[in-house]
Amino acid sequence: MNVVRSRYRILYGDTDAMGIVYYANYLKWFEMGRNEWLRAQGLSYREMERDGTHAPVSQVYCRFRIPARFDDVIVVETQVEYVRRASIKFTYRILRETDGEELVRGYTVHAFVDGNGRIVRTPRRILERIRQLQEDPKSRG
Amino acid sequence: MNVVRSRYRILYGDTDAMGIVYYANYLKWFEMGRNEWLRAQGLSYREMERDGTHAPVSQVYCRFRIPARFDDVIVVETQVEYVRRASIKFTYRILRETDGEELVRGYTVHAFVDGNGRIVRTPRRILERIRQLQEDPKSRG
Amino acid sequence: MNVVRSRYRILYGDTDAMGIVYYANYLKWFEMGRNEWLRAQGLSYREMERDGTHAPVSQVYCRFRIPARFDDVIVVETQVEYVRRASIKFTYRILRETDGEELVRGYTVHAFVDGNGRIVRTPRRILERIRQLQEDPKSRG
Amino acid sequence: MNVVRSRYRILYGDTDAMGIVYYANYLKWFEMGRNEWLRAQGLSYREMERDGTHAPVSQVYCRFRIPARFDDVIVVETQVEYVRRASIKFTYRILRETDGEELVRGYTVHAFVDGNGRIVRTPRRILERIRQLQEDPKSRG
Repeated sequence: MNVVRSRYRILYGDTDAMGIVYYANYLKWFEMGRNEWLRAQGLSYREMERDGTHAPVSQVYCRFRIPARFDDVIVVETQVEYVRRASIKFTYRILRETDGEELVRGYTVHAFVDGNGRIVRTPRRILERIRQLQEDPKSRG
Repeated sequence: MNVVRSRYRILYGDTDAMGIVYYANYLKWFEMGRNEWLRAQGLSYREMERDGTHAPVSQVYCRFRIPARFDDVIVVETQVEYVRRASIKFTYRILRETDGEELVRGYTVHAFVDGNGRIVRTPRRILERIRQLQEDPKSRG
Repeated sequence: MNVVRSRYRILYGDTDAMGIVYYANYLKWFEMGRNEWLRAQGLSYREMERDGTHAPVSQVYCRFRIPARFDDVIVVETQVEYVRRASIKFTYRILRETDGEELVRGYTVHAFVDGNGRIVRTPRRILERIRQLQEDPKSRG
Repeated sequence: MNVVRSRYRILYGDTDAMGIVYYANYLKWFEMGRNEWLRAQGLSYREMERDGTHAPVSQVYCRFRIPARFDDVIVVETQVEYVRRASIKFTYRILRETDGEELVRGYTVHAFVDGNGRIVRTPRRILERIRQLQEDPKSRG
């Protein structure tokens, strides 16, 4: 549903002594992906937080197929798999820009909580936007 | 099988603007956990690499229950779930030291590869050590 | 001499529990800045390394004036202050894109070394490019 | 004045494709050093923050002499160089544990601010502790 693409060029600081990107760093680009997904919907994580709702990660899974290396440009493709009463699931594919090869694939599940960490309902603006996308997958807001 | 414990105190640099540890950082402490697990067996990742074998992560999964915060001491409990022909799976539990509460739980799967990234067999020293542990779970080498 | 600009949007993972960017992360954007400076000159750090020359950082200084926050877009302005026989010095200004406010200012000094860590001369391609820039500051290669 | 030592074992995730520790990571161990320095004085950064005072870094300098590598144990030696009306300066030496070789040396300067980022006076407990140390350098609180 509504794939959003973001680009990033690998720094030396993202790599490790094996000469490839350290595995934990892909999770930062998953975050970049979901931030950009929200932005592309006219939503903003920053605004959601100002309204008192946070979406900490409750689960992450990641499958590493081909390593990215210094100076590679990667493309993160982000989608929403589902939105529930109080949670959301994003899926990600990270591709190498030069040849489109899929490097990494994964997902994150998030709970919605208030400022005190108590579970709250999925914000209405997200639900409405998802419904729009389901009715008209090409709509861009 | 043979739980190994390692300790770490959370830095400011490990936290994020939500006031809690950023999710990607737990993967670094998974790494700390498996390094210490190997060391406790009399094995060493550094030596394994000198012998030409690397063990890049092929999958990671992580479930976040309770957030760690700045200055918390965490304990990583690491175990091997299985060793196969050319792979190994570690499982991890991250506890808060003060009250033993489980914060995070997860696993990593690793392939064994040579310096050119080609799959190789699980190093014999690891297989032998695992067999010893299965025969006598209390053995510490 | 020949300012090169690069952009980056702050992730949650770049911030800390004070709600601002953790200080160590600016050094990664200094790296982004010098990579882009080299690229803008038609040079490439990756190629330089393939030719056997590395440029590890020997000194870094950083002055933090105003903190960047989650979702801010920062602009890194990178310049070369000098090139010597076997070293190079980059200076950086990090600005907030929305209002041009200077957030951070700093420099790095790098030694040129070969694959064994022995000091080597500044690569000829860099020296030549710097000379061109000094003769004609507007030249873009 | 009152050197405090802290230990850390280098992870794979701390290294980069040059096979050595990435330069930004030393700043995290500077933070570990000053946290431990405060703790050794019976002070705590966490408590200071609960009292409403923060100490963001305003300047950092770092000189890199010898690189640390994966699995090395490093020792951070932290000292206070001075305390002023509204600031504090820490100096750091990072040594390799096996041979005591100095790898890195640097300093950080911090301003004291309240929750709104306004400059405040150096907390009295820190001033008193520093005065004690100056009168009796061997005192450990």
